[in-house]
Amino acid sequence: MRTPEQLLSFSQSALLELRERSPLVQCITNTVVTNFTANVLLALGAAPAMVDIPKEAGSFAELASGLLINLGTPHAEQREAMLEAVSGANRADSPWLLDPVAVGSLPVRTALAQQLRGLRPSVIRGNASEIIALAGSGRGGRGVDAADEVAAAQESAITLAAAGSVVAVSGPTDLILDQQQRVLSSNGTPILTRITGGGCALGAVMAAFAGLSNDRLASTVAAVSVYTVAAEIASSNSQGPGSFAPAFLDSLASIGPDDLAARAKLTVVQVGQ
Amino acid sequence: MRTPEQLLSFSQSALLELRERSPLVQCITNTVVTNFTANVLLALGAAPAMVDIPKEAGSFAELASGLLINLGTPHAEQREAMLEAVSGANRADSPWLLDPVAVGSLPVRTALAQQLRGLRPSVIRGNASEIIALAGSGRGGRGVDAADEVAAAQESAITLAAAGSVVAVSGPTDLILDQQQRVLSSNGTPILTRITGGGCALGAVMAAFAGLSNDRLASTVAAVSVYTVAAEIASSNSQGPGSFAPAFLDSLASIGPDDLAARAKLTVVQVGQ
Amino acid sequence: MRTPEQLLSFSQSALLELRERSPLVQCITNTVVTNFTANVLLALGAAPAMVDIPKEAGSFAELASGLLINLGTPHAEQREAMLEAVSGANRADSPWLLDPVAVGSLPVRTALAQQLRGLRPSVIRGNASEIIALAGSGRGGRGVDAADEVAAAQESAITLAAAGSVVAVSGPTDLILDQQQRVLSSNGTPILTRITGGGCALGAVMAAFAGLSNDRLASTVAAVSVYTVAAEIASSNSQGPGSFAPAFLDSLASIGPDDLAARAKLTVVQVGQ
Repeated sequence: MRTPEQLLSFSQSALLELRERSPLVQCITNTVVTNFTANVLLALGAAPAMVDIPKEAGSFAELASGLLINLGTPHAEQREAMLEAVSGANRADSPWLLDPVAVGSLPVRTALAQQLRGLRPSVIRGNASEIIALAGSGRGGRGVDAADEVAAAQESAITLAAAGSVVAVSGPTDLILDQQQRVLSSNGTPILTRITGGGCALGAVMAAFAGLSNDRLASTVAAVSVYTVAAEIASSNSQGPGSFAPAFLDSLASIGPDDLAARAKLTVVQVGQ
Repeated sequence: MRTPEQLLSFSQSALLELRERSPLVQCITNTVVTNFTANVLLALGAAPAMVDIPKEAGSFAELASGLLINLGTPHAEQREAMLEAVSGANRADSPWLLDPVAVGSLPVRTALAQQLRGLRPSVIRGNASEIIALAGSGRGGRGVDAADEVAAAQESAITLAAAGSVVAVSGPTDLILDQQQRVLSSNGTPILTRITGGGCALGAVMAAFAGLSNDRLASTVAAVSVYTVAAEIASSNSQGPGSFAPAFLDSLASIGPDDLAARAKLTVVQVGQ
Repeated sequence: MRTPEQLLSFSQSALLELRERSPLVQCITNTVVTNFTANVLLALGAAPAMVDIPKEAGSFAELASGLLINLGTPHAEQREAMLEAVSGANRADSPWLLDPVAVGSLPVRTALAQQLRGLRPSVIRGNASEIIALAGSGRGGRGVDAADEVAAAQESAITLAAAGSVVAVSGPTDLILDQQQRVLSSNGTPILTRITGGGCALGAVMAAFAGLSNDRLASTVAAVSVYTVAAEIASSNSQGPGSFAPAFLDSLASIGPDDLAARAKLTVVQVGQ
């Protein structure tokens, strides 16, 4: 089990490594947030590529360092591309992340999410409602809102993690867990919920960090820490959700190890305790 | 007939109610403005959901508080989803808004707009060219520009309103009318025409307000007043179209009843006068 | 052959003419950058229209002053619309620009790019990797990054220009050439590579300028000069990629002939020298 200090140290190194290696991150994501997602990755220092059509998505996924599958607007062509891309990532043993947006009562994405869940995502990210719905224990959210508290989703997250995925539940306190341990991250700002893509782009950042290391739990914690600390810094430089978005991108471009040391709030609980 | 004072008072209450109830607004809109539209709704306090695929759009529309149908980039899958969503909204007796972007000479969207017009939209919003073209009395615009003046579209708007819709014509002075009365709203800033989605996002805001009250005319006036007064405030805090957009979102997040009282410019004319 | 002074003078006049005539620019472009592309055109003073569906794209292209074909996310419906639009532009003898994003190893867009190349684009724009791949002499980039230097793409650009297109290679120094001469433009800022759409939107601006004059080389140089000088001005008004984007739009809206005179860095080399 890693200590909070070890996770912080890992996050600091991972941030520098991401900037140096500029990992290629394939994003198959919804039409609402593609622009913001690409800008978040570019600001941070990664290289986004939105290759999301059949006959291209699979071979590209074999080359990419990480893959994001986000179900926000799963048009037919994109659904086919998602399955090809996941096959490509699995062939190449590359990490991929599932973000089951608004899964639950909406039938197309819910069926697709269950199918994708069976293909062994490296990381699953969602709000509490989505995690509960994906695990089969709730009826899902009303879109991208989170009606459930993070704590209420813990059992569902544990269920999903039993198949080998790291699971991250977003909320005022983020929960990241695998079969061995649970990590709570208490950074961030409520204003992230007042811009679209605040959660979706975090999934892309997790995919970027996942490509840098085989320690999936620590990589996912690094993504959450970097993203939410950058958001905290940005919130103090903005007057509302409009000015927050550019300030957040600026913050992602300038955040450094010292910012993480000064602000990251991580706690670790061994599973079973 | 409502007086300007009553419309102002309604708008002030509606703004507060919107923030308190955070209505779920389903948006089936064009690929250019999805991100901005979602951010406008979030900044204002509503909950956007871009559920725009067949087999999901219809059942979701039954749950949503309001629905936006925007014809800017009507891809085949989205056209099918639009018809399902309108059926869902009509089954649930929920309000829905038609924004017939660039209708007129472009055949696919023009045929679809006429079909949708027959399905009894609660509100129809467009620039003068679009309203004239939808009513069958002009050849439409050259995209989203408005070649006609608002006044020239008044007869067309009256024609469309005869079937029961509230009709809103956007321009330097906005015209909102139903079968009983006409309201002129003189707020806003020309810079709204220098950012993409300035009109499209207003349609989403109208759908958000429509979900709060059965008084469709007053709700549409409230949407116009809140949106254009927020734009006025933002224009004085920006140096061009780039800095205007985030300032506008900040302004939508902070605008209050006092801002409406200080700035809203409404006049009312009884139909027939 | 034009001198740098003549190209500067042409650029200054073209900028004023663009603002006065507000050319209608049809953009069939990728889902990541549609919003930014439309905002760039609006800020500059052009009129964007994203008409990208079959049965509409072709007739609209006959009316538009310029057409952008960008292969970033070439969904099936858009591919069909692209071919219709190019036919329409060629029927009307209107200029159109091909931006072969990430062409090379990705099979769908690479085949489409070769087909489009045969349809006589007025202008071809890409980074060095894309130009090399389109000319058949390299394996393309890993997305929208440019792995090759601009100089290495010069022979490929000359190959492409032999069929009559103006070819523009983006990089720290931009290269614009036709069969008669090569122009080097040394303005810009590295931060343009840290926002998504920095290159894609330049293609749209080239299509806007192309509609104003039959001098395709000078028009393309004008687009590059206006765009990169505006970017330089914006970079000194911003703190990172987030604040750069709105500052860039503000700069595009306010840039004038004097800014070009003060900053444009153009050199001209006759082909064969």
